[in-house]
Amino acid sequence: MSEADKLLDKIDGPEDLDGLDDAQLQQVAQEMRTYIIDTIGQIGGHFGANLGTCELTVALHSLLDSPRDKVLWDVGHQSYPHKILTGRRDELPTIRQYEGLAPFCSIGESEHDIMGAGHASTSIGYAVGLKEAMRKGIGTDGRVAAVIGDGALTGGVAYEALHAAGGLQTPIVIVLNDNGMSISPNVGALSRYFNRIRLNPRLYHAREGVEDRLTKLPLGVGRRIERLGPEIKAAIKAYWAPGLFFEELDLAYMGVIDGHDVAALRRALTEAFEAERPVVVHIHTVKGKGFAPAEANGLASMEEWHAAKPNSIVNGRPTAAEKPVPVQETDSPEGIERLEKPPAPGSPPQYTKVFAEAMVAEAEGDERVIGITAAMAGGTGLQKLADERPEQYYDVGIAEQNAVLLASGLALQGAKPVCAIYSTFLQRAFDQIVHDVCLQELDVTFAMDRAGLVGDDGPTHHGAFDISYFRPLPNVVVMAPRDEAMLVHMLHTAIAHDGPAALRYPRGAAEGVAIPKQAKLLPIGVGEVLAEGRGVALLGYGFGVHVALEAAAILADHGLQVTVADARFAKPLDQELATRLAREHDLLVTIEENVLPGGFGAGVLELLEDAFEGGPAERARVLRVGLPDRYVTHGKPDLLRAEVGLTGQAVADRVLAATPSAQPIAR
Amino acid sequence: MSEADKLLDKIDGPEDLDGLDDAQLQQVAQEMRTYIIDTIGQIGGHFGANLGTCELTVALHSLLDSPRDKVLWDVGHQSYPHKILTGRRDELPTIRQYEGLAPFCSIGESEHDIMGAGHASTSIGYAVGLKEAMRKGIGTDGRVAAVIGDGALTGGVAYEALHAAGGLQTPIVIVLNDNGMSISPNVGALSRYFNRIRLNPRLYHAREGVEDRLTKLPLGVGRRIERLGPEIKAAIKAYWAPGLFFEELDLAYMGVIDGHDVAALRRALTEAFEAERPVVVHIHTVKGKGFAPAEANGLASMEEWHAAKPNSIVNGRPTAAEKPVPVQETDSPEGIERLEKPPAPGSPPQYTKVFAEAMVAEAEGDERVIGITAAMAGGTGLQKLADERPEQYYDVGIAEQNAVLLASGLALQGAKPVCAIYSTFLQRAFDQIVHDVCLQELDVTFAMDRAGLVGDDGPTHHGAFDISYFRPLPNVVVMAPRDEAMLVHMLHTAIAHDGPAALRYPRGAAEGVAIPKQAKLLPIGVGEVLAEGRGVALLGYGFGVHVALEAAAILADHGLQVTVADARFAKPLDQELATRLAREHDLLVTIEENVLPGGFGAGVLELLEDAFEGGPAERARVLRVGLPDRYVTHGKPDLLRAEVGLTGQAVADRVLAATPSAQPIAR
Repeated sequence: MSEADKLLDKIDGPEDLDGLDDAQLQQVAQEMRTYIIDTIGQIGGHFGANLGTCELTVALHSLLDSPRDKVLWDVGHQSYPHKILTGRRDELPTIRQYEGLAPFCSIGESEHDIMGAGHASTSIGYAVGLKEAMRKGIGTDGRVAAVIGDGALTGGVAYEALHAAGGLQTPIVIVLNDNGMSISPNVGALSRYFNRIRLNPRLYHAREGVEDRLTKLPLGVGRRIERLGPEIKAAIKAYWAPGLFFEELDLAYMGVIDGHDVAALRRALTEAFEAERPVVVHIHTVKGKGFAPAEANGLASMEEWHAAKPNSIVNGRPTAAEKPVPVQETDSPEGIERLEKPPAPGSPPQYTKVFAEAMVAEAEGDERVIGITAAMAGGTGLQKLADERPEQYYDVGIAEQNAVLLASGLALQGAKPVCAIYSTFLQRAFDQIVHDVCLQELDVTFAMDRAGLVGDDGPTHHGAFDISYFRPLPNVVVMAPRDEAMLVHMLHTAIAHDGPAALRYPRGAAEGVAIPKQAKLLPIGVGEVLAEGRGVALLGYGFGVHVALEAAAILADHGLQVTVADARFAKPLDQELATRLAREHDLLVTIEENVLPGGFGAGVLELLEDAFEGGPAERARVLRVGLPDRYVTHGKPDLLRAEVGLTGQAVADRVLAATPSAQPIAR
Repeated sequence: MSEADKLLDKIDGPEDLDGLDDAQLQQVAQEMRTYIIDTIGQIGGHFGANLGTCELTVALHSLLDSPRDKVLWDVGHQSYPHKILTGRRDELPTIRQYEGLAPFCSIGESEHDIMGAGHASTSIGYAVGLKEAMRKGIGTDGRVAAVIGDGALTGGVAYEALHAAGGLQTPIVIVLNDNGMSISPNVGALSRYFNRIRLNPRLYHAREGVEDRLTKLPLGVGRRIERLGPEIKAAIKAYWAPGLFFEELDLAYMGVIDGHDVAALRRALTEAFEAERPVVVHIHTVKGKGFAPAEANGLASMEEWHAAKPNSIVNGRPTAAEKPVPVQETDSPEGIERLEKPPAPGSPPQYTKVFAEAMVAEAEGDERVIGITAAMAGGTGLQKLADERPEQYYDVGIAEQNAVLLASGLALQGAKPVCAIYSTFLQRAFDQIVHDVCLQELDVTFAMDRAGLVGDDGPTHHGAFDISYFRPLPNVVVMAPRDEAMLVHMLHTAIAHDGPAALRYPRGAAEGVAIPKQAKLLPIGVGEVLAEGRGVALLGYGFGVHVALEAAAILADHGLQVTVADARFAKPLDQELATRLAREHDLLVTIEENVLPGGFGAGVLELLEDAFEGGPAERARVLRVGLPDRYVTHGKPDLLRAEVGLTGQAVADRVLAATPSAQPIAR
């Protein structure tokens, strides 16, 4: 095909699809696929899911009038084709990069991005709200479609919303984008259900076939069947019809539709949009569709291609360096970073890898230790436990609430469950943490990977709040390691502790210290002084210790020898350490990778105000360094940390500004 | 029946049911029912749900060996018969009272109370965890039954857990206690589904009938039917079988069983416990079973009887004073207080009532205003909106996450949704608040009733954390009214504010000030000085202002004229007010009904530490008064507030202790 024949170049908005016939639309989809492969192959990013939605996106936008009509992408990492068709084709190469296109749909980025969605399972609830408002005459009327992956459908809130849509009979279209790979086979019953529908050719072509065969029966038999009761024909259809799960919730069901056939999709969607009721359109797509190396090698290979590493695609293999760990969460937002940043030989390991190995060691040492994740097996490193000790491992799918309840039940029976869930996703189980684990004082450990700024995935994924949401809860121990050795000790301490405990650690590479052969028990609520100095004390928590040490080095260059301490625990705080630092210094700087309101530094302020009964005049001024009271954008963590002032240099600058007397003599 | 024939008096534990025959067990159930009616009729408390579970409880405990075998009650307000049979018969009259039996199951209260549960929908997740641990040889093996109300089954986490149970094929028994009244008819599709099952006599007796009729067909017809395919017989059975929703999730289904027939229950449960897989036993019970006034008057009447008011039952009518508002949440833990504390004529109205009227006024003034609740229509007062402006109202059932997503979708379309959800239940939607409402800056208002100590319902229901979990979030305005007039203004302000806003107010009676005819817009982030004094400033937030005013009055009696201010906003805090108070006084006391970590007082500390750049020596010492860092028990709010020191007297005492120079001359 010559350049002149290319259709995609002329598509600057969804309206440019008007007038194209099915064949041309199919061609647009294929051109998008090639463009995505070429572009993401160069820059890295989400890959497989987007190749699966090219035809669906074309079909939807050719039928709809966006943004008056609304398409919701759940989750948004299948939305690259949507971005391409809605005026952002030429910006695709900037996606997931600092100041570039957002990795998911983003309200601020385009009027065609109806909802922001990095967390899964939300689209149906939004769709019901949008359409219900339209029914009341609020805003402009239009059609509403929610595109939800089969993995996202395991989230409880999606079910709550299905239930509401059926109850209210809200006329929305729910496109179930089923690529058959999103749910690990043993995660839940839904994947088996979808498999039964998809893989049974008899079920596939059910309705017509049965009706046909019934019609062709000799008249006498037909009459006798009638005598069985008027329900018999319906009974036969009901059995053959695959969507009973949805139909029981009063949702109409259409499926299974070939998700790579634009004409078939357009026919089905047209019918669905014309229905005066909620309709589930079940489509079957192939992840990585059209990319030969991925399609040819089947599922295991495709999992590797969920997110592509820069420059890997042109070589036709996932990474040059090493075969990545297969993960379960290929259609979830979780774990999508795993192919990036392979460590150079000799460089520090990822925190995730250290945790993974420590978990296996803990599980080997005690059969009561059980790892639980929620579609983050690869991202949290728990896949290693799944591989080596499958009896001590659960993946509940995208169902964080139930992950914590499962842990609660296990703990009641005397097990030692460890919930390995990213900071941002664990907040989905906040009520279970408050009401089940902490109130009941159950022996559950929370291991929060991706605490702090996660980078390219941006504001929906930053772990900015966990210190603030854990610290108010009674009965829980809250801690964070400053390096990989401490991570090993803290995991051990949390598991050994007879009660709720939480630890957080950042995404990315650890510090490069030696990993202890033997994990040791840390005294709960005791911090550690790393360097003694004068005038200024830097009290870090988790990654904040790294920043404190960097700042101390810079300040030393300025002739300022500061005290550096690692609080280790945000709850209980080390009162002796904090009060001593505050008493013996003029300035106490707390450093954390969490928003400041309610965070670690706030805890230090609370402690000091209570401890210095003679009044705050007796102590150092406290300067709190952390994440700002706003949502931080996407981009490489280093860029983001520089933006928000969470660097050694920024802290050193603030210390110097706050202690004019300490200004160094120029040298 | 003479006293000597009574069986219940001899039941001191579940083992005492051994050897009783079905008729005797049925008698025990009936005696329990009478005992509950007599007891709760005197003291007040949950009522209807407990009358519905008498036979089920007897059947379960006669078959099981508790606590080795585990029965989980979801939620626990149907567990009075369980408490009676497990050694707490004679303590029943103390239930829900300070230092008496807990209102729900409580791990600390009895080895037979397996899980603590005031929040609905958790039991299946716990059951899976318990049984999975047993399968791994952790703890003692036993059988596990989760009893879940049909209302609780609308919660997403229950679905997540059903999905997990089906996926893992965990051999647990899930008793679906369906009284057909727990879900408002228009809440969701599930209630219609259960109604279809329950009300269709053809479905009810389906399997046998169809098999019979198939068997009786002439041989020739039978053969011809075979030709349709081997699936035909299964097809017919499938259609007739009522549990397809569950069967699609790979759960076996038995039902519908008469929940008041001990023998039938024992037969069904025996079969279910013998299955090597998860089984749903669908039972039909009648709320208020056996209590003539309730049963006779049908559903509307029964809703009134969900919780009984002290001494009301002996009169055979719900309350002497007034007919209560019907509510939707009769099987949910929410709203259970509504029949208590009817205000005396001329006494201050309940905050709930003031909110209810203000919501109707707001909805009348602007058709974009839409009230949303989650099975708390009565408890939040939103029932009034439902009655008067049904087009501007949604009840999503027990599905707080979806309540917030529904609001998000409505807001995207330009509506002005108000989520009226108790503080303790809103935490179930924490992720939706963080990721959907605040990150997306959607125009959603959260109206949190039951903020602070709720009283009899105890630690599962106290609204102790909402200031701490809202304050860290960017883009949200957080406020609390000091009286009912301010509630009217704040609701108006929150709705008018173009972005997320949250307000909290306590359970119970308001202050008795005049309710404004016209709501006014408050300036965001501006507090108010109520009394000027010297030396000491009391800065209250919400109910804390009430306490501050009380304390000020007591201090005035001691000759101490203190400043009293109402912060009004916890976010943004009034910086000018806070810094002025801190600068001009020696002691600044913050008062809030929330845990101290991360709460309102913590926010004041954060603000002051940042604002006084010259160091804390320039400002007053801050004393924070609030809820302690532990879960508070159940009992009347006044008793609890005295226990935790959240009273005017306690604050005055602490002020006097902290300011020795201010000690009054004895007079």
